[in-house]
Amino acid sequence: MQAPKQIPPETFLIDRDTPLPLQLQLRRQIVLAVHEGRFRPGERMPSSRALSAHLGVGRITVSMAYGELVAADYLVARGRSGYFIADRAHALDETPTLAPMPRFDWTGKLPGRYRATQRKDRPRNWRDYPYPFLYGQIDDRLIDHAAWRECAVRALGRRDLGALADDQYDGDDPELIDFIIRHLLPRRGIRARPEEVLLTMGAQNALWLICQILLNRGEACAIEEPFYPGLHEILSVHDCQVHPVPIDAQGLPCDAIPAQVSVVFTSPSHQCPTNRTMPRARREALLRLAALRGFAVVEDDYEFEISFAGATSPALKAMDRSGAVIYIGSFSKSVFPGLRLGYIVADPAFVAEARALRSMMLRHPPGHVQRTMAYFLSLGHYDRQLNRMRAAYAERRAATAQALVRHGLDLGMEAGSGGSSFWLGTPGGLDSELLAARLRPQGVLIEPGRPFHRQSGAGAASYRLAYSSIGVSEIEEGIRRIAAVSRDCAGAA
Amino acid sequence: MQAPKQIPPETFLIDRDTPLPLQLQLRRQIVLAVHEGRFRPGERMPSSRALSAHLGVGRITVSMAYGELVAADYLVARGRSGYFIADRAHALDETPTLAPMPRFDWTGKLPGRYRATQRKDRPRNWRDYPYPFLYGQIDDRLIDHAAWRECAVRALGRRDLGALADDQYDGDDPELIDFIIRHLLPRRGIRARPEEVLLTMGAQNALWLICQILLNRGEACAIEEPFYPGLHEILSVHDCQVHPVPIDAQGLPCDAIPAQVSVVFTSPSHQCPTNRTMPRARREALLRLAALRGFAVVEDDYEFEISFAGATSPALKAMDRSGAVIYIGSFSKSVFPGLRLGYIVADPAFVAEARALRSMMLRHPPGHVQRTMAYFLSLGHYDRQLNRMRAAYAERRAATAQALVRHGLDLGMEAGSGGSSFWLGTPGGLDSELLAARLRPQGVLIEPGRPFHRQSGAGAASYRLAYSSIGVSEIEEGIRRIAAVSRDCAGAA
Repeated sequence: MQAPKQIPPETFLIDRDTPLPLQLQLRRQIVLAVHEGRFRPGERMPSSRALSAHLGVGRITVSMAYGELVAADYLVARGRSGYFIADRAHALDETPTLAPMPRFDWTGKLPGRYRATQRKDRPRNWRDYPYPFLYGQIDDRLIDHAAWRECAVRALGRRDLGALADDQYDGDDPELIDFIIRHLLPRRGIRARPEEVLLTMGAQNALWLICQILLNRGEACAIEEPFYPGLHEILSVHDCQVHPVPIDAQGLPCDAIPAQVSVVFTSPSHQCPTNRTMPRARREALLRLAALRGFAVVEDDYEFEISFAGATSPALKAMDRSGAVIYIGSFSKSVFPGLRLGYIVADPAFVAEARALRSMMLRHPPGHVQRTMAYFLSLGHYDRQLNRMRAAYAERRAATAQALVRHGLDLGMEAGSGGSSFWLGTPGGLDSELLAARLRPQGVLIEPGRPFHRQSGAGAASYRLAYSSIGVSEIEEGIRRIAAVSRDCAGAA
Repeated sequence: MQAPKQIPPETFLIDRDTPLPLQLQLRRQIVLAVHEGRFRPGERMPSSRALSAHLGVGRITVSMAYGELVAADYLVARGRSGYFIADRAHALDETPTLAPMPRFDWTGKLPGRYRATQRKDRPRNWRDYPYPFLYGQIDDRLIDHAAWRECAVRALGRRDLGALADDQYDGDDPELIDFIIRHLLPRRGIRARPEEVLLTMGAQNALWLICQILLNRGEACAIEEPFYPGLHEILSVHDCQVHPVPIDAQGLPCDAIPAQVSVVFTSPSHQCPTNRTMPRARREALLRLAALRGFAVVEDDYEFEISFAGATSPALKAMDRSGAVIYIGSFSKSVFPGLRLGYIVADPAFVAEARALRSMMLRHPPGHVQRTMAYFLSLGHYDRQLNRMRAAYAERRAATAQALVRHGLDLGMEAGSGGSSFWLGTPGGLDSELLAARLRPQGVLIEPGRPFHRQSGAGAASYRLAYSSIGVSEIEEGIRRIAAVSRDCAGAA
């Protein structure tokens, strides 16, 4: 987007309560804006008529200020076309600044615990890397951009103006809820009524709401290890005890869940990050245990739509007849993550509480986003995009597996039932942070394993290799580079 | 939106781990979906070919299931066009349900404190009321719908696909931030660098982030009374002490701020809900006190754009050279509330912490919303919409004041410098909840005063009368009804 060439008069503000003359205030504002880079060379100043009308000052005041700034080389006058910011204005001597004032001391006031959790291993400019094996992003080829655009334009129509513009307080778009209940949840074997469903700003926001409600008064919870780093970050800033339970080949082992927990987090259909699937017998055991001990189960079904290897099994929530399971779905993996849209399915009492909390935190996801999603679903685009995604992911997964074998890299423990990534060991137990750092200058992005474990050092020899963001034709070369850099690192050690 | 007439095959799911025959499972799913209203009369079933392919079962299994359901009157066959849900299918006897199971007991697990704060006095269907004097909503005539649509369509273009689709982690749209810094904040006299600005899901979300960071470990804070109910709700669920300070004619009196507070919330330009403006001398005193006692000041400048009576004065933040002020801006009042977009301007240390917290809570506002707003601003639509809004609000405010006088109602204490509402006393101290309840069947919405005060009963004789959501031609009749119902209530008492 080009910077607007015309600086609008609304940019200026006069303070009538100071003794500073109006003309001087105006000059100072322009000089400051030039030095701070807000006004840029070549941009046109408002006409003296427009600016004097906006500020309610005499036109002569504006003309005099402009004249002074031309004399000082900040502005240039170009005949009838007006005044412009001079080319080298920013290189002029700065005006005397205001007297310094002691800075407010924020150090004691900020807990700093939020910042402490921030990950730095996923660059925002991942599209600039030729080999981005980056989980959670989707490459352009898989997004049905034209269909999304069509739905978004439709949702901008006059009949949807209320859905777009209104504060919905704590409410959700009834058309989207209706479609989720009637056509999406049945695919997971889940039956729900509207009062059992709440939209969220993605699965991340769903996890936050759940933790804020159930785990902020010293309660204990169990999570799978390795775990979803986003969940562990949230738990680390809540007042609760976290018990990581190492998974086995069938996912979370029920008999290892500590007795005192009140919430258990699991991703039974695609364990995150290992993609393991919990078999039916263990799911039944987990639900029996939940009933016996009175703990709630949070099922993160973040990636169900893109399972493609073998028949889909129902969600854990589909087997839950007691209401103990809080189910989380997301459109981040099946549509695109910038959408920020997901949902919770749970007991009406829990949903009512989560709805009130969401309303206090942010009211609701933007109305236009909700209505667009409703159209994307109801017009069949969602199914078409998913079908294309599944086919592409199956192809990419096969290409990745072949390349891994060809270059002598680990293939991971599980056959995998789909998903968008592999969870792998590094060659010779190499540190995956080191490997990732060495691969970046080679244009390759991988995700090191440490953030998936609690103990520092655990996961150091693991990494996640995703294929949602990389095209099939780049996979072979990307993996060749991983193998080559691994050999170099091992040789240097 | 019409329900799709064709039920997609993806709606169905077979569980291969149960002893239940496939054909029976399929029949049961259809019957349940009919009784639960998910499948509706006239909708077409998938073809037996498509459904058998999707489920990976024999076509005969599907045909037999359909045949049984035709015999049971759930489906009707219509020659070559396939099978449809029968007209009276939902009225058939329900199939035996699953054996009952004890419900999970949520009562002890839910704090219930979020739900306790919910207000019930603002109906979502406010557009159905002919006289909606409802604060915080904007009527269709004031929204430049065509311009918004143009910007949204532009932001759906291929060159903005990354902004639309990507997970931005903790980042904001640089084009929107750039425009806010260069062209929006200067209007309030505020200079800021990018690391001092954070986008939020509206002002509500900004307040939540601030409270979560600064007021969750037993700290004390001061708020103005009457206050913004949304702020008080947030504070009520955080671990902090809240000291409401009654305002006077100049807003928050500094000498009444308790000594021990670490945060002071104020809306100096338009006190919420009274619209009073804090004069410069008091603003300076407030900043001196903040420096002396070390408290942070949160300035909610939620409605600055729609001041139209007299010249705008700079924000408190413009006078803040120490970094003690956290400034909140919002597009809810100047664009529309369904957008859910606002921002914080504060010290970089605070913004970094708030950015990390926002990322954990919800990542970021949807990319498309951010980019659309950047276009709306940079193409000049924002200024045009504001100019139209200001003119309309000035006209509506004058019409409201005239009608209030004509019908013998209170005109409030303040002359008012604009905004979108009046804060009024009821005739004869009538209970404003009673008044609001009696006015609803007359098609009139007003906002009772109790939620703006802490003590139960305080504010009972006050109400807010907004004109953002009601056209100028409806104002006279709406106020006539308020006066008439007030007389009736007083006569009945």
